[in-house]
Amino acid sequence: MSGAHRSHCPINMWLEIFGDRWSLLILRSMIFGNRRHFREMLKSRERIAPTILAARLRMLVDEGIITRADDPNHKQKAIYSLTEKGITLVPILASISAWSRAHLPVSEELSMGDQELEGDDPGRWEDLMAELRETHLGIPRDRSENGGPSTTVTSPLAAAGEAGPAHRRGQ
Amino acid sequence: MSGAHRSHCPINMWLEIFGDRWSLLILRSMIFGNRRHFREMLKSRERIAPTILAARLRMLVDEGIITRADDPNHKQKAIYSLTEKGITLVPILASISAWSRAHLPVSEELSMGDQELEGDDPGRWEDLMAELRETHLGIPRDRSENGGPSTTVTSPLAAAGEAGPAHRRGQ
Repeated sequence: MSGAHRSHCPINMWLEIFGDRWSLLILRSMIFGNRRHFREMLKSRERIAPTILAARLRMLVDEGIITRADDPNHKQKAIYSLTEKGITLVPILASISAWSRAHLPVSEELSMGDQELEGDDPGRWEDLMAELRETHLGIPRDRSENGGPSTTVTSPLAAAGEAGPAHRRGQ
Repeated sequence: MSGAHRSHCPINMWLEIFGDRWSLLILRSMIFGNRRHFREMLKSRERIAPTILAARLRMLVDEGIITRADDPNHKQKAIYSLTEKGITLVPILASISAWSRAHLPVSEELSMGDQELEGDDPGRWEDLMAELRETHLGIPRDRSENGGPSTTVTSPLAAAGEAGPAHRRGQ
């Protein structure tokens, strides 16, 4: 987002980052599918091309939406993490998902989890965001207020057979 | 959106319509700026090219997000209206706007109005949607519940000197 902006309207500036067909899909995979590695992200149903994935990941790092680091568990691999800026995209993805299920022929299988995030209950979004802050930023979740792990938000992609944060925790 | 989809994931299907740099800007102009004619939309700060605008409007009509009709007040002109499907994009635009103002160097001048739509109060979104249903779909608003015109949502672009629904009503 360096250089000139078309305008400083909030909608426009968001589109200057996310106004393409892939960037939000990558974030969807990280937020709902707990995909943190390049090869995992390549396996998306939408078949993103490696060159596009690499370019979009670089852009998202440059924008401060995600960070890239060496994975301590895999010396050859980089691991991507959401930043706070990236985690706070959750309400947008939840609104998009709600709209699509109301108006488009979406797959129920692929939308089982984010269904729970919908509606007028930002508490569910907060819950997922707290989970992501713990997984991606190492910020321990305060379980005293909301009754502990039982309130974990089910990962949508987990319902479709893919690993999500809810899957990995406590196992 | 005819033909094959990359997947039936709700986020992906939304991106197949709105995953570009212009479509949401056109809807922003219609929703917040009450721009209904081609020439008005051309005057956006972001300087959309006429060919792109024409193509995007056609796509949005095809997708059932907007409709196109002869303007009874201008024989040479077509007027575009939001459908219910288009009006229900309001919560998404409000979430995007909230995120941008939190994280990007947006113009306060250009975001004065949608600021009011933000936060955890879907009542404000409902209010704007009721206003749009009246203006675009001719569905009279039920004023008995919410106290009448004083609850009209201020148009963001109106604050920046452009006509909005709030401007036109009752004048």
